[in-house]
Amino acid sequence: MLSWIDGQPAELLSAKDRGLAYGDGLFETIAVTAGQAVLLERHLARLAEGCARLRIPIDMNLLKAELLAFCQQLGDGVAKLMVTRGDGQRGYAPPEPAQPRRILQSAAKPQYPARNAEQGVRLFACATRLAEQPLLAGLKHLNRLEQVLARAEWQDAEHAEGLMLDASGRVIEGVYSNLFIVRAGQLITADLSRCGVAGVMRAELLAQAAACGIGCQVRDFDLAELLAADEVFLCNSVYGVWPVCALQTHDWPVGPLTRKLQAIARDLLDC
Amino acid sequence: MLSWIDGQPAELLSAKDRGLAYGDGLFETIAVTAGQAVLLERHLARLAEGCARLRIPIDMNLLKAELLAFCQQLGDGVAKLMVTRGDGQRGYAPPEPAQPRRILQSAAKPQYPARNAEQGVRLFACATRLAEQPLLAGLKHLNRLEQVLARAEWQDAEHAEGLMLDASGRVIEGVYSNLFIVRAGQLITADLSRCGVAGVMRAELLAQAAACGIGCQVRDFDLAELLAADEVFLCNSVYGVWPVCALQTHDWPVGPLTRKLQAIARDLLDC
Repeated sequence: MLSWIDGQPAELLSAKDRGLAYGDGLFETIAVTAGQAVLLERHLARLAEGCARLRIPIDMNLLKAELLAFCQQLGDGVAKLMVTRGDGQRGYAPPEPAQPRRILQSAAKPQYPARNAEQGVRLFACATRLAEQPLLAGLKHLNRLEQVLARAEWQDAEHAEGLMLDASGRVIEGVYSNLFIVRAGQLITADLSRCGVAGVMRAELLAQAAACGIGCQVRDFDLAELLAADEVFLCNSVYGVWPVCALQTHDWPVGPLTRKLQAIARDLLDC
Repeated sequence: MLSWIDGQPAELLSAKDRGLAYGDGLFETIAVTAGQAVLLERHLARLAEGCARLRIPIDMNLLKAELLAFCQQLGDGVAKLMVTRGDGQRGYAPPEPAQPRRILQSAAKPQYPARNAEQGVRLFACATRLAEQPLLAGLKHLNRLEQVLARAEWQDAEHAEGLMLDASGRVIEGVYSNLFIVRAGQLITADLSRCGVAGVMRAELLAQAAACGIGCQVRDFDLAELLAADEVFLCNSVYGVWPVCALQTHDWPVGPLTRKLQAIARDLLDC
């Protein structure tokens, strides 16, 4: 497996990195097929937005060049890109000027059971709720203890993902996926302005669905509306789309809109 | 400056550490005087509680032995102790078994202006609010982006600390301190069951005040009650107690209870 730090092969980094001290950074998890980063521009745009919101002064041209070279060398797999504010001294005050650090790590494509994509997955109902923090909402930052706690709630192989609500009971997302519901032929996915991670596959599916003339709503919805949905599915940038077939005692069929978006995601990931 | 990882002098750590990837860990910032860790047992107890809540299986005996040796070697300064869940593979699921990592770093005692302790400090009114997450409240975990954002709100030297409210407008703490108010001879400090860091100096001052017969309340209060307070002060485990003399256009006098607790903290830090 490959590991680069600031463009050079390296597996160790400074223990003074603020990514470690405070989670002061961001990451992207990128599917790589035949040396190409899937949804490259969306990943870069989200990272650039995150750096702007956290005021991490990253050189996006340098970062993109390194990422392209890394993916070329990787060939097929998953590239994880982390950007931190770099080393810090004692205290929360960001160093001026900061010297951000770029970390690239590879992994093999995860081998999920074929039934996840075919018959769909069962959702575990996580007790861990997402806190509402508008200043960080949508970002894929390195403060991920809520996801660690949620993912630790189940160990069985029966549940492939967990459902996360916010503190007010709104349905937000999976632990490592975004979630869509279908009602009367319309796509609905959660408003992520208070919490949640705005996934690049979510953004791409919203764009492609709109381009196909499918109605899309980004808005709040609760558990009752999830249960009443015609179809439910999950997405992320590595596995694409998984239908959701069950949550506790409730079942959903795998519907036509889910299959349509799954095919779109598969095309993106395979090419 | 000293830097130890798992008991050995080292300045680099694995880029696969989950402390970096997810902020999956905890820390303590400990004043060290003449080779002794101040408030040692309280720091160890808080860390042990944090490890229990995050289910990080740490060997507290080994950690304590390393910390004692580190402080002995340091002599005078500040010891920062981080515990992470150790290396991980891709994904949020905690590795089983985890191999936690222990990181010790030293710094010189910060040279704060003498007026902070004497005349008191001005509080900056941070716009960054603390999100409410009961599962993480009280812990000194490594997910500290809120503090990074809050501390980046001011650069002037006029403000030594910033005031943080929660999303509902309750007064919680400083960016790197806990906050007390005094009303009618009683100490009041925020309930930290929804957010905030339960500082060891806060715990020690509550215990010592109670032992002196001073009434102590741990409860919610809002900005109006803060402004109406007779005295306001901050505390942490490195500087002890600072009176708060002002917030924006509001002034407070430095009162007798503040001075009494400041003397208690000074005794702890000097010996």
